[in-house]
Amino acid sequence: MSTPVIHKSFTIERTYPVPAARVFRALSDPKKKRRWFAEGDGFIIDSYTLDFQVGGFERTRFRFGDGPAMTNDSVYLDIVENERVVFAYSMTIGGNPMSSSLGTMELVPVREGTLLRFTEATAFVDGNDGSAGRREGSIGLLEALAKELEVHG
Amino acid sequence: MSTPVIHKSFTIERTYPVPAARVFRALSDPKKKRRWFAEGDGFIIDSYTLDFQVGGFERTRFRFGDGPAMTNDSVYLDIVENERVVFAYSMTIGGNPMSSSLGTMELVPVREGTLLRFTEATAFVDGNDGSAGRREGSIGLLEALAKELEVHG
Repeated sequence: MSTPVIHKSFTIERTYPVPAARVFRALSDPKKKRRWFAEGDGFIIDSYTLDFQVGGFERTRFRFGDGPAMTNDSVYLDIVENERVVFAYSMTIGGNPMSSSLGTMELVPVREGTLLRFTEATAFVDGNDGSAGRREGSIGLLEALAKELEVHG
Repeated sequence: MSTPVIHKSFTIERTYPVPAARVFRALSDPKKKRRWFAEGDGFIIDSYTLDFQVGGFERTRFRFGDGPAMTNDSVYLDIVENERVVFAYSMTIGGNPMSSSLGTMELVPVREGTLLRFTEATAFVDGNDGSAGRREGSIGLLEALAKELEVHG
Protein backbone atom coordinates (compact mmCIF):
# COMPACT_ATOMS: atom_id res chain seq x y z
CA MET A 1 0.00 0.00 0.00
CA SER A 2 1.27 3.46 -0.88
CA THR A 3 2.24 5.88 1.85
CA PRO A 4 -0.03 8.94 2.11
CA VAL A 5 0.73 11.73 -0.34
CA ILE A 6 2.21 14.84 1.29
CA HIS A 7 0.98 18.17 -0.15
CA LYS A 8 3.12 21.31 0.15
CA SER A 9 3.48 24.64 -1.61
CA PHE A 10 5.72 27.69 -1.61
CA THR A 11 6.24 30.97 -3.45
CA ILE A 12 9.60 32.63 -4.12
CA GLU A 13 10.41 35.83 -5.97
CA ARG A 14 13.46 37.25 -7.68
CA THR A 15 13.95 40.45 -9.65
CA TYR A 16 16.14 40.50 -12.76
CA PRO A 17 17.55 43.74 -14.24
CA VAL A 18 16.27 42.98 -17.75
CA PRO A 19 12.96 43.30 -19.63
CA ALA A 20 10.38 40.51 -19.32
CA ALA A 21 10.98 39.45 -22.93
CA ARG A 22 14.58 38.51 -22.04
CA VAL A 23 13.48 36.43 -19.08
CA PHE A 24 10.81 34.76 -21.20
CA ARG A 25 13.39 33.89 -23.83
CA ALA A 26 15.50 32.11 -21.20
CA LEU A 27 12.41 30.09 -20.25
CA SER A 28 11.41 29.16 -23.79
CA ASP A 29 14.64 28.76 -25.79
CA PRO A 30 15.82 25.13 -25.51
CA LYS A 31 19.55 25.99 -25.64
CA LYS A 32 19.24 28.63 -22.94
CA LYS A 33 16.84 26.65 -20.78
CA ARG A 34 19.05 23.56 -20.85
CA ARG A 35 22.05 25.63 -19.78
CA TRP A 36 20.62 27.21 -16.63
CA PHE A 37 17.97 24.63 -15.74
CA ALA A 38 19.68 21.29 -16.36
CA GLU A 39 23.44 21.83 -16.46
CA GLY A 40 24.11 22.63 -12.81
CA ASP A 41 27.44 21.89 -11.12
CA GLY A 42 27.85 18.14 -10.57
CA PHE A 43 24.89 17.18 -12.77
CA ILE A 44 25.38 14.78 -15.67
CA ILE A 45 22.76 15.26 -18.39
CA ASP A 46 21.92 12.05 -20.25
CA SER A 47 19.29 13.74 -22.39
CA TYR A 48 17.29 16.95 -22.59
CA THR A 49 14.43 17.96 -24.88
CA LEU A 50 12.11 20.97 -24.76
CA ASP A 51 8.93 21.45 -26.77
CA PHE A 52 7.78 24.82 -25.44
CA GLN A 53 4.08 24.96 -26.29
CA VAL A 54 0.87 24.13 -24.46
CA GLY A 55 0.71 20.33 -24.29
CA GLY A 56 4.41 20.04 -25.12
CA PHE A 57 6.93 18.27 -22.89
CA GLU A 58 10.33 19.09 -21.45
CA ARG A 59 12.15 15.89 -20.57
CA THR A 60 15.41 15.75 -18.61
CA ARG A 61 17.31 12.53 -17.86
CA PHE A 62 20.16 13.15 -15.46
CA ARG A 63 22.29 12.00 -12.55
CA PHE A 64 24.01 13.88 -9.79
CA GLY A 65 27.61 12.60 -9.60
CA ASP A 66 27.54 8.85 -8.92
CA GLY A 67 23.90 8.98 -7.85
CA PRO A 68 20.93 7.09 -9.29
CA ALA A 69 19.29 7.94 -12.61
CA MET A 70 16.74 10.70 -12.24
CA THR A 71 14.03 12.06 -14.52
CA ASN A 72 12.22 15.38 -14.61
CA ASP A 73 9.33 15.51 -17.06
CA SER A 74 7.40 18.74 -17.47
CA VAL A 75 4.32 19.46 -19.54
CA TYR A 76 3.25 23.01 -20.36
CA LEU A 77 -0.31 23.88 -19.37
CA ASP A 78 -0.64 27.61 -20.04
CA ILE A 79 1.69 30.08 -21.73
CA VAL A 80 1.26 33.85 -22.20
CA GLU A 81 4.29 35.27 -24.00
CA ASN A 82 6.45 37.49 -21.78
CA GLU A 83 3.94 37.18 -18.92
CA ARG A 84 3.19 33.70 -17.64
CA VAL A 85 4.16 30.04 -17.83
CA VAL A 86 2.22 27.32 -16.01
CA PHE A 87 3.49 23.76 -16.13
CA ALA A 88 3.29 20.45 -14.31
CA TYR A 89 6.26 18.21 -13.69
CA SER A 90 7.06 14.86 -12.18
CA MET A 91 10.35 13.61 -10.82
CA THR A 92 11.56 10.04 -10.40
CA ILE A 93 14.75 8.76 -8.77
CA GLY A 94 16.12 5.30 -9.50
CA GLY A 95 12.92 4.56 -11.39
CA ASN A 96 10.67 5.38 -8.43
CA PRO A 97 8.17 8.26 -8.47
CA MET A 98 9.17 11.04 -6.08
CA SER A 99 6.81 13.95 -6.73
CA SER A 100 4.41 15.70 -9.05
CA SER A 101 4.09 19.49 -9.03
CA LEU A 102 2.23 22.41 -10.48
CA GLY A 103 4.60 25.30 -11.24
CA THR A 104 3.58 28.85 -12.07
CA MET A 105 5.99 31.53 -13.24
CA GLU A 106 4.68 35.08 -13.45
CA LEU A 107 6.77 37.83 -15.04
CA VAL A 108 5.89 41.26 -13.65
CA PRO A 109 7.48 44.44 -15.05
CA VAL A 110 8.91 46.52 -12.20
CA ARG A 111 11.07 49.64 -12.05
CA GLU A 112 14.25 47.57 -11.62
CA GLY A 113 13.43 45.20 -14.49
CA THR A 114 11.32 42.06 -14.16
CA LEU A 115 10.05 40.36 -11.04
CA LEU A 116 9.70 36.59 -11.46
CA ARG A 117 7.22 35.08 -9.02
CA PHE A 118 7.45 31.30 -8.84
CA THR A 119 4.80 29.27 -7.04
CA GLU A 120 4.99 25.51 -6.73
CA ALA A 121 2.39 23.13 -5.30
CA THR A 122 3.78 19.62 -4.89
CA ALA A 123 2.42 16.18 -4.17
CA PHE A 124 5.28 14.17 -2.63
CA VAL A 125 4.33 10.56 -3.34
CA ASP A 126 7.24 8.61 -1.83
CA GLY A 127 6.44 9.31 1.81
CA ASN A 128 9.18 11.92 2.19
CA ASP A 129 8.39 15.59 2.72
CA GLY A 130 10.92 17.10 0.34
CA SER A 131 9.47 20.60 0.52
CA ALA A 132 12.43 22.31 2.22
CA GLY A 133 14.88 20.92 -0.32
CA ARG A 134 12.54 21.71 -3.20
CA ARG A 135 12.27 25.33 -2.11
CA GLU A 136 16.08 25.59 -1.76
CA GLY A 137 16.56 23.95 -5.15
CA SER A 138 14.15 26.41 -6.74
CA ILE A 139 15.99 29.37 -5.20
CA GLY A 140 19.15 27.91 -6.73
CA LEU A 141 17.49 27.67 -10.14
CA LEU A 142 16.40 31.33 -10.02
CA GLU A 143 20.02 32.17 -9.16
CA ALA A 144 21.21 30.09 -12.13
CA LEU A 145 18.74 32.00 -14.31
CA ALA A 146 20.30 35.27 -13.05
CA LYS A 147 23.73 34.06 -14.19
CA GLU A 148 22.32 32.96 -17.56
CA LEU A 149 20.86 36.44 -18.13
CA GLU A 150 24.08 38.10 -17.00
CA VAL A 151 26.48 35.99 -19.04
CA HIS A 152 24.47 35.05 -22.14
CA GLY A 153 21.92 37.87 -22.38
CA MET B 1 -0.72 42.82 -18.60
CA SER B 2 -2.09 39.67 -16.98
CA THR B 3 -3.88 39.84 -13.64
CA PRO B 4 -2.03 38.15 -10.79
CA VAL B 5 -2.49 34.40 -10.56
CA ILE B 6 -4.59 33.26 -7.58
CA HIS B 7 -3.40 30.06 -5.88
CA LYS B 8 -5.83 27.91 -3.91
CA SER B 9 -6.11 24.31 -2.75
CA PHE B 10 -8.60 21.99 -1.07
CA THR B 11 -9.00 18.36 -0.05
CA ILE B 12 -12.25 16.40 -0.06
CA GLU B 13 -12.94 12.77 0.83
CA ARG B 14 -15.65 10.28 0.05
CA THR B 15 -15.99 6.61 0.93
CA TYR B 16 -17.43 4.12 -1.58
CA PRO B 17 -18.78 0.70 -0.55
CA VAL B 18 -16.67 -1.15 -3.13
CA PRO B 19 -13.07 -2.42 -3.39
CA ALA B 20 -10.36 -0.02 -4.62
CA ALA B 21 -10.04 -1.93 -7.89
CA ARG B 22 -13.63 -1.01 -8.78
CA VAL B 23 -13.03 2.66 -8.07
CA PHE B 24 -9.81 2.55 -10.07
CA ARG B 25 -11.66 1.00 -13.02
CA ALA B 26 -14.10 3.92 -13.02
CA LEU B 27 -11.12 6.30 -13.15
CA SER B 28 -9.28 4.50 -15.95
CA ASP B 29 -11.91 3.01 -18.27
CA PRO B 30 -12.76 5.62 -20.96
CA LYS B 31 -16.43 4.58 -21.26
CA LYS B 32 -17.01 4.71 -17.50
CA LYS B 33 -14.97 7.87 -16.97
CA ARG B 34 -16.80 9.74 -19.72
CA ARG B 35 -20.15 8.78 -18.20
CA TRP B 36 -19.62 10.08 -14.67
CA PHE B 37 -17.00 12.76 -15.33
CA ALA B 38 -18.21 14.46 -18.54
CA GLU B 39 -21.88 13.64 -19.07
CA GLY B 40 -23.41 15.64 -16.23
CA ASP B 41 -26.96 17.04 -16.40
CA GLY B 42 -27.10 19.98 -18.79
CA PHE B 43 -23.66 19.37 -20.27
CA ILE B 44 -23.26 18.90 -24.02
CA ILE B 45 -20.15 16.87 -24.88
CA ASP B 46 -18.61 17.82 -28.22
CA SER B 47 -15.74 15.37 -27.84
CA TYR B 48 -14.08 13.21 -25.22
CA THR B 49 -10.88 11.16 -25.36
CA LEU B 50 -8.94 9.39 -22.60
CA ASP B 51 -5.44 7.92 -22.87
CA PHE B 52 -4.97 6.66 -19.32
CA GLN B 53 -1.20 6.33 -18.95
CA VAL B 54 1.59 8.52 -17.61
CA GLY B 55 2.07 11.28 -20.19
CA GLY B 56 -1.31 10.52 -21.78
CA PHE B 57 -4.07 13.09 -22.14
CA GLU B 58 -7.77 13.23 -21.38
CA ARG B 59 -9.43 15.91 -23.50
CA THR B 60 -13.02 17.07 -23.03
CA ARG B 61 -14.72 19.67 -25.26
CA PHE B 62 -18.08 20.68 -23.87
CA ARG B 63 -20.68 23.35 -23.25
CA PHE B 64 -23.15 23.87 -20.48
CA GLY B 65 -26.54 24.52 -22.06
CA ASP B 66 -26.28 27.60 -24.30
CA GLY B 67 -22.99 28.65 -22.69
CA PRO B 68 -19.61 29.21 -24.34
CA ALA B 69 -17.36 26.40 -25.55
CA MET B 70 -15.24 25.01 -22.74
CA THR B 71 -12.23 22.71 -22.67
CA ASN B 72 -10.78 20.52 -19.93
CA ASP B 73 -7.44 18.95 -20.82
CA SER B 74 -5.79 16.63 -18.33
CA VAL B 75 -2.40 14.93 -18.50
CA TYR B 76 -1.54 12.00 -16.26
CA LEU B 77 1.61 12.45 -14.18
CA ASP B 78 1.72 9.44 -11.87
CA ILE B 79 -0.40 6.28 -11.73
CA VAL B 80 -0.25 3.40 -9.24
CA GLU B 81 -2.91 0.82 -10.09
CA ASN B 82 -5.73 0.69 -7.53
CA GLU B 83 -3.89 3.18 -5.30
CA ARG B 84 -3.12 6.58 -6.77
CA VAL B 85 -3.66 8.88 -9.75
CA VAL B 86 -1.92 12.25 -10.06
CA PHE B 87 -2.79 14.50 -12.98
CA ALA B 88 -2.68 18.12 -14.10
CA TYR B 89 -5.48 19.81 -15.96
CA SER B 90 -6.26 23.13 -17.57
CA MET B 91 -9.65 24.65 -18.30
CA THR B 92 -10.57 27.29 -20.84
CA ILE B 93 -13.90 29.03 -21.40
CA GLY B 94 -14.73 30.77 -24.66
CA GLY B 95 -11.12 30.21 -25.73
CA ASN B 96 -9.71 32.01 -22.69
CA PRO B 97 -7.54 30.23 -20.09
CA MET B 98 -9.31 29.94 -16.74
CA SER B 99 -7.16 27.69 -14.56
CA SER B 100 -4.47 25.04 -14.30
CA SER B 101 -4.54 22.49 -11.50
CA LEU B 102 -2.70 19.60 -9.93
CA GLY B 103 -5.10 16.84 -8.90
CA THR B 104 -4.27 13.89 -6.66
CA MET B 105 -6.60 10.96 -6.04
CA GLU B 106 -5.63 8.49 -3.35
CA LEU B 107 -7.57 5.25 -2.89
CA VAL B 108 -7.36 3.97 0.68
CA PRO B 109 -8.91 0.60 1.67
CA VAL B 110 -11.11 1.09 4.73
CA ARG B 111 -13.54 -1.18 6.57
CA GLU B 112 -16.53 0.24 4.67
CA GLY B 113 -14.86 -0.08 1.25
CA THR B 114 -12.58 2.52 -0.30
CA LEU B 115 -11.89 6.05 0.80
CA LEU B 116 -11.09 8.39 -2.09
CA ARG B 117 -9.08 11.43 -1.00
CA PHE B 118 -8.98 14.14 -3.64
CA THR B 119 -6.62 17.10 -3.32
CA GLU B 120 -6.51 19.89 -5.85
CA ALA B 121 -4.07 22.81 -6.05
CA THR B 122 -5.18 25.39 -8.59
CA ALA B 123 -3.69 28.42 -10.29
CA PHE B 124 -6.62 30.63 -11.35
CA VAL B 125 -5.19 32.69 -14.20
CA ASP B 126 -8.16 34.85 -15.25
CA GLY B 127 -8.27 37.05 -12.17
CA ASN B 128 -11.26 35.25 -10.65
CA ASP B 129 -10.97 33.18 -7.49
CA GLY B 130 -13.02 30.18 -8.56
CA SER B 131 -12.02 28.03 -5.60
CA ALA B 132 -15.43 27.78 -3.92
CA GLY B 133 -17.11 26.69 -7.13
CA ARG B 134 -14.27 24.31 -7.93
CA ARG B 135 -14.60 22.61 -4.58
CA GLU B 136 -18.38 22.32 -5.00
CA GLY B 137 -17.95 20.97 -8.51
CA SER B 138 -15.48 18.36 -7.27
CA ILE B 139 -17.89 17.25 -4.54
CA GLY B 140 -20.49 16.87 -7.31
CA LEU B 141 -18.07 14.74 -9.36
CA LEU B 142 -17.40 12.41 -6.41
CA GLU B 143 -21.19 12.09 -6.05
CA ALA B 144 -21.47 11.28 -9.76
CA LEU B 145 -18.78 8.62 -9.27
CA ALA B 146 -20.88 7.13 -6.46
CA LYS B 147 -23.84 6.82 -8.83
CA GLU B 148 -21.62 5.28 -11.54
CA LEU B 149 -20.40 2.62 -9.10
CA GLU B 150 -23.93 1.96 -7.86
CA VAL B 151 -25.60 1.75 -11.28
CA HIS B 152 -22.89 0.37 -13.56
CA GLY B 153 -20.65 -1.53 -11.11
